[in-house]
Amino acid sequence: MSMDFNQQSVLFENFLVEKTNSYFPLPSLINEAVHYSLLSEGKRIRPLLCLGFAQAFSGDQDQALRFAVAIEMVHSYSLIHDDLPAMDNDDLRRGRPTNHKVFGQAHAILSGDSLLNMAPEFLLKELRLLQVDPNKIIDIVALLMEASGHEGMIKGQSLDMEYQAKDLSRFDNESLKSILSNIHKLKTGSLITWSCIAGLHSHDDTQFVQKYKCQVKSIGQRIGLLFQIIDDILDVTSNIQDLGKTPGKDQQNSKLTYTHLYGVQGATAIAKELIKEIYQDIEGFKINGDWQIIRQIIDSLEEKLPQ
Amino acid sequence: MSMDFNQQSVLFENFLVEKTNSYFPLPSLINEAVHYSLLSEGKRIRPLLCLGFAQAFSGDQDQALRFAVAIEMVHSYSLIHDDLPAMDNDDLRRGRPTNHKVFGQAHAILSGDSLLNMAPEFLLKELRLLQVDPNKIIDIVALLMEASGHEGMIKGQSLDMEYQAKDLSRFDNESLKSILSNIHKLKTGSLITWSCIAGLHSHDDTQFVQKYKCQVKSIGQRIGLLFQIIDDILDVTSNIQDLGKTPGKDQQNSKLTYTHLYGVQGATAIAKELIKEIYQDIEGFKINGDWQIIRQIIDSLEEKLPQ
Repeated sequence: MSMDFNQQSVLFENFLVEKTNSYFPLPSLINEAVHYSLLSEGKRIRPLLCLGFAQAFSGDQDQALRFAVAIEMVHSYSLIHDDLPAMDNDDLRRGRPTNHKVFGQAHAILSGDSLLNMAPEFLLKELRLLQVDPNKIIDIVALLMEASGHEGMIKGQSLDMEYQAKDLSRFDNESLKSILSNIHKLKTGSLITWSCIAGLHSHDDTQFVQKYKCQVKSIGQRIGLLFQIIDDILDVTSNIQDLGKTPGKDQQNSKLTYTHLYGVQGATAIAKELIKEIYQDIEGFKINGDWQIIRQIIDSLEEKLPQ
Repeated sequence: MSMDFNQQSVLFENFLVEKTNSYFPLPSLINEAVHYSLLSEGKRIRPLLCLGFAQAFSGDQDQALRFAVAIEMVHSYSLIHDDLPAMDNDDLRRGRPTNHKVFGQAHAILSGDSLLNMAPEFLLKELRLLQVDPNKIIDIVALLMEASGHEGMIKGQSLDMEYQAKDLSRFDNESLKSILSNIHKLKTGSLITWSCIAGLHSHDDTQFVQKYKCQVKSIGQRIGLLFQIIDDILDVTSNIQDLGKTPGKDQQNSKLTYTHLYGVQGATAIAKELIKEIYQDIEGFKINGDWQIIRQIIDSLEEKLPQ
């Protein structure tokens, strides 16, 4: 059944609420902290990329929904931990006080741990209930953990923290550009790329998955980069209401960003070029899939760019 | 091949070093922080329980070694996060400065995340290389995540933090005893119990595993409780050299402990009773297994009790 962005959003949101209630039952202080962050109003870009690719490749919706929930668990844990005072020290996230501001640092750490712990547990259990081939279950969970682990998202955050503590003036511009690109490929890119790949994997034909895996990975990396550049631009151009978090934090934390290295105009030009490439990627798949969700995601990102 | 405690210790230690080097390659700041904690000299009680039960039940040594490494990853992550200033605020662990004292809080959080992230990834990959039945792989990883998650170890730490913040004088002694027993069953007990069960699961005969699962769970819970009570006693009676961490921290943090509720003598009496029960449990299995490692672990715990 073909759906547009809004229909899939509603479907995903209801599914996420149902699974959160069942896997993190209340009352329990730790689960309250989990609900607070996991169910807070987010853009759900990663889950919707997964569902969008599943739709484009006529994959299995039931599997894709489970992948999407696991992605949101990992993403949500990473936000909770990244917002901690010892990391990015953010007070505001998705328009509300950050997890540690409400539940204290101890429970913010623990609820993040709990979400990271649950992502593989949830997938293993739910995919088995769907009677997915156990070898495929093992593959997909191992891939998710790779994307989120010390060669993926965690490595990105680690490099980000490392370079915040360094005097950047001793690097030339070319080195900084390569460092920045590496940080973002890992920190934001790995999980976004996995989201796209997971959408493809919801298709049960292994040969079909093999055929398109490389192309999906490549478009996923472009989308991840686009997403990060726009995030960097909004940190400079947006206000607190639109952003849902405190703008200007990157500069305050002396973070390496695309606007820092290329200026807002330069970063915007790179983003526009990426959007062109992503649309070419979509044409390049040469399958008559329903790309409306992916197109809507890219269009909504484009709208955020300065005119 | 039958081994004693020391032989298994050496075997495990070498295997842990080999796998740590391969899964967390250097140089990398985040992996350095992982090596620092995972390879620091610990008692390795959990891995050795796993290997000890595997030996008692003539299980598969190769599988048991992998389970043991995953257990140590989860245990090590929990120590790093529990030692953070926002949690138990410990400066010393296993005779060395805690992870955040050396690498800073950001990297302590991230290296803990990385270890938790790796435990399921490692098991999925390594067990598949051993060509273990994929359904069994899914079972065992899901069980580990349950033991470490918000219904297990994380819940225990959450309750521990919750009660530290409360005025305990408004609870009567019976309530406190029941709260304490619940906290420890979760915080220390879940992972220790899983270690014992994992040893049994290294046996490939499903019917055999089913037959003994309940009994192993029960002895595992007793060993977990014994371990915690002795930890509480040593916090009062031991010095910084023997303990490898700062003694008296529990009292300083107003923690609910067995010595707090039962006194050192009372707690010692409970521990001795538990040891008797554990030896009866071992007799009760009625299998001609080689229990020397498990017996050596229990004996070494008994030796720590005040005379």
